[in-house]
Amino acid sequence: MTTYQFPQFPKQFPKNRLLQKVKDSFVKRFLTDKASIRYLEEGFINATDIPFVRFIGIKEKEEVLSLDLKKNVCNHVETIHAAAQFTLAETESGMRLQSLFPELEQKVIPLVRDAQIKYKKPAAQKITAHSFVDDKAIEKFKIQFGKKGRALLQIRVEIRDIDDTLTSEAHITWFVQARLDEKA
Amino acid sequence: MTTYQFPQFPKQFPKNRLLQKVKDSFVKRFLTDKASIRYLEEGFINATDIPFVRFIGIKEKEEVLSLDLKKNVCNHVETIHAAAQFTLAETESGMRLQSLFPELEQKVIPLVRDAQIKYKKPAAQKITAHSFVDDKAIEKFKIQFGKKGRALLQIRVEIRDIDDTLTSEAHITWFVQARLDEKA
Repeated sequence: MTTYQFPQFPKQFPKNRLLQKVKDSFVKRFLTDKASIRYLEEGFINATDIPFVRFIGIKEKEEVLSLDLKKNVCNHVETIHAAAQFTLAETESGMRLQSLFPELEQKVIPLVRDAQIKYKKPAAQKITAHSFVDDKAIEKFKIQFGKKGRALLQIRVEIRDIDDTLTSEAHITWFVQARLDEKA
Repeated sequence: MTTYQFPQFPKQFPKNRLLQKVKDSFVKRFLTDKASIRYLEEGFINATDIPFVRFIGIKEKEEVLSLDLKKNVCNHVETIHAAAQFTLAETESGMRLQSLFPELEQKVIPLVRDAQIKYKKPAAQKITAHSFVDDKAIEKFKIQFGKKGRALLQIRVEIRDIDDTLTSEAHITWFVQARLDEKA
């Protein structure tokens, strides 16, 4: 059996041109959310501290993300909106990604590349998110990331109501890129 | 050339058991949003009046939906969150569906069946939504709906920033079902 070693990245978030570019483009546009600025500077953010996630009211308890049925997240028939369920699924997949590779914390920028979601039943109650990742996909990710400093990983997420009914199922693909100077 | 005629549905929203079931399940759970109750009773809601859509701040101007770059809709790198872009795309597809079949207004319940979205560029500015539907898909929808009182339609949506850069592209499939008593 082969064990894959991640390349050694600097422990401090590098003050490089890529970071500068990101900061110039985004942070200086009057965006002052403390958690996000901390992410850009320190390379880590709690999933539930991401501005949009917090705004919608996604909560974490014992590592399970949930969203209550409340007026602001509803659709035209008073169930939880398709896009609010999508938000919960996306957040779960991001949190799962963080927990899968703690050694990459502060060393990468993860971004969603694509996503699919299928709606199964109306979400007429509080919903929770549950994620699943294929072991082979994780190994493939490690090999690709070790070689190229960037890789893709697909995470499957089930959204279930408190009666355990599956309301929707999503497949979310993350693109993870090392935070290194392009010329390093 | 054949012209497809929609079956004649009662003009008033039928006070049937299906509606009663929907109302019992959703509205009575302390949900008091006026626009949504109106939708259940009258069969129509403006896309921007859907609670989640309004909560996020999606705006309509001259039939173009937009979302401003602001803290509450941002992700961890201070661009517009993947799920907020998804919400804009989904809303645009729903509005397009309404405008395609005005004759079905008050006579159907449309629900999203599934969706795919690909992220192309970061959304670091205000974004707008633009939808596209295949003519053949519309004809197929009409035939299927005419026969069975229910049909699927896929709508493609481009999300573009104010410099016309494509930030994401979605394909959203709607399931449209006639509001008729199950035994009618």
